[in-house]
Amino acid sequence: MFKAKLKANVLKSVIDATTTLVDEVKLHITPEGVSLKAVDPAHVAMVDLSLGSKAFAEYKATDIELGVDLDKLKEILKLASSEDTIGLEYKEDQNRLVVTVGNLVRRMSLTDTAGIPDPKVPNLNLPNKVKVKGAELSQGIKASESVSDHIALVCDENAFELNAEGDTDTVNLKLTKNQLVELKASERTKSLFSLDYFSNMVKAADGASDISLALGSDYPVRVEFDFAQGHGHVTYLLAPRIESD
Amino acid sequence: MFKAKLKANVLKSVIDATTTLVDEVKLHITPEGVSLKAVDPAHVAMVDLSLGSKAFAEYKATDIELGVDLDKLKEILKLASSEDTIGLEYKEDQNRLVVTVGNLVRRMSLTDTAGIPDPKVPNLNLPNKVKVKGAELSQGIKASESVSDHIALVCDENAFELNAEGDTDTVNLKLTKNQLVELKASERTKSLFSLDYFSNMVKAADGASDISLALGSDYPVRVEFDFAQGHGHVTYLLAPRIESD
Amino acid sequence: MFKAKLKANVLKSVIDATTTLVDEVKLHITPEGVSLKAVDPAHVAMVDLSLGSKAFAEYKATDIELGVDLDKLKEILKLASSEDTIGLEYKEDQNRLVVTVGNLVRRMSLTDTAGIPDPKVPNLNLPNKVKVKGAELSQGIKASESVSDHIALVCDENAFELNAEGDTDTVNLKLTKNQLVELKASERTKSLFSLDYFSNMVKAADGASDISLALGSDYPVRVEFDFAQGHGHVTYLLAPRIESD
Repeated sequence: MFKAKLKANVLKSVIDATTTLVDEVKLHITPEGVSLKAVDPAHVAMVDLSLGSKAFAEYKATDIELGVDLDKLKEILKLASSEDTIGLEYKEDQNRLVVTVGNLVRRMSLTDTAGIPDPKVPNLNLPNKVKVKGAELSQGIKASESVSDHIALVCDENAFELNAEGDTDTVNLKLTKNQLVELKASERTKSLFSLDYFSNMVKAADGASDISLALGSDYPVRVEFDFAQGHGHVTYLLAPRIESD
Repeated sequence: MFKAKLKANVLKSVIDATTTLVDEVKLHITPEGVSLKAVDPAHVAMVDLSLGSKAFAEYKATDIELGVDLDKLKEILKLASSEDTIGLEYKEDQNRLVVTVGNLVRRMSLTDTAGIPDPKVPNLNLPNKVKVKGAELSQGIKASESVSDHIALVCDENAFELNAEGDTDTVNLKLTKNQLVELKASERTKSLFSLDYFSNMVKAADGASDISLALGSDYPVRVEFDFAQGHGHVTYLLAPRIESD
Repeated sequence: MFKAKLKANVLKSVIDATTTLVDEVKLHITPEGVSLKAVDPAHVAMVDLSLGSKAFAEYKATDIELGVDLDKLKEILKLASSEDTIGLEYKEDQNRLVVTVGNLVRRMSLTDTAGIPDPKVPNLNLPNKVKVKGAELSQGIKASESVSDHIALVCDENAFELNAEGDTDTVNLKLTKNQLVELKASERTKSLFSLDYFSNMVKAADGASDISLALGSDYPVRVEFDFAQGHGHVTYLLAPRIESD
């Protein structure tokens, strides 16, 4: 059983955070809330998202798994303004998700969950933690896209740096401890990442909020942020690129 | 003789309502106002539009017919903001329509009216009448476009419904009597329509206003709305699609 | 040596005025300010731009020439809002221009100035002078683009006119002396110009400001306007088209 109501903008955050990696997803529904885990087809990045029942205007659920086509949910979002309430109800007899916006009802067929992988999120020990304003990070990414398709994230006790090296030009964003929301670093670390993936993750966070990064040397980055006034949380893992010399 | 001035947004309503079906049109001009009738090339839909002389800021005319290329009028509208006044004057000696916006003058050649058909609008007896908010109808159409290329309009004493059936998903908009501006229905009717045509008609009405529908079973729908503060009126007829079972 | 700071919108004006004609440019930098001259590849138009040191928030320079790729500067502008301050500094040892926006640093390689021509701006004696509102001129150009690819600029003691003649339609913008900001004309002049070039020059001026035109008969037009609150000045020369009869 699953019957819930939520604001369109909360549903939008869930979809935006997930569609950067996959087109369809298995929703794990429990009485406490909804969660999902997904890995992109190239196995470069992972998302682990949870949305507590308090993020919903109404919420009633037993344990259930639903296979959802994210493009269909996107179509429905286009019909609602961000403060509109969207109703979701699973109809077991039809195996459909019934989505309502105002007087409008869409009955959505579901995807077979057997075909959707259930990735295991590895527990990584990443020595450095940085919390940075999303808008600042977005600007650094945008500037980097003009000169390269990958970036280095560098961190030590005093600063966090984003570096992009092109054939003729370079971009550098350096944020010292007092320009960051938070910096906890015990050693100097440096890893290289695909700009495309990293950019999509930061975009999903929406410029307004803070983004947490956990960093090591030639190790994955963990990107985390909250949404739905703290009742929702997204964790990404992005594998490093190996520097060719 | 024809010499008139009107607001750009009134002219825009005339053009929007007509270009959904045809590219050029014969304007019937009389001392009382301007009117036009047109049928689309596939003979699926018809428009009958009238704009009374009171919709104009200035209006002087004798009986005359002008063949107008609607794309040229659209180009001129792009030069004006919606509250700007547009001047129209027929120069008989040059067979041109002189259009003025501020200090700008465009002399427009006219189309031979002999080549433009003069359709007869049939007088249909349609049992059910519904008046619905344009915005509500627009939302239902937008949602339907995700799942199908045609819709069923269903009406009875208690409610008006718009249904779209796709291969896997369905969309339903149900408006009960108290959710409608008006409902006068004596029997249950149902007809199927091309979504594309119906969508363009509703778009031409502009989300703000009320739209009247007259409905029968496997019969055309009559779509009507006012513009120019009630001095303009548009009537569309749209032929039904035959349901294949 | 060159080290300066300026508002993003001032830099934008410089780039907009220049990229209509060329992709890269030689900046002449002196203690008094920055200037540039460029001719388009087809040798139809010329730009002569100057920006005094007072247009900058900070300015320190000795005599120097820098070859700049305008596309790269455009990329940086996209990262700044119009009131943001942009830092420019020439690093002689690396032969790079270091551009800063907030905490962001882009090191830009420079272009060899030897390959960039240094056009001589001819001193033309043009009998008629008109000053016209940019927005009015823009509207006339936009209307003309619907009917032709060239325009005639006509001027006499009483009025300035812009005429476009198409196969079937014509556009005319007539501004009499009291509708112009200024008119100093001693004879009747008429010249024909490529609409495309003229349109780009007027767009670069940004609809808000006044534009000065100096006109002769079958002679180039000189288009001039100020920016950066009068500390910047742009002069274009555009060659006439020869009327084929």
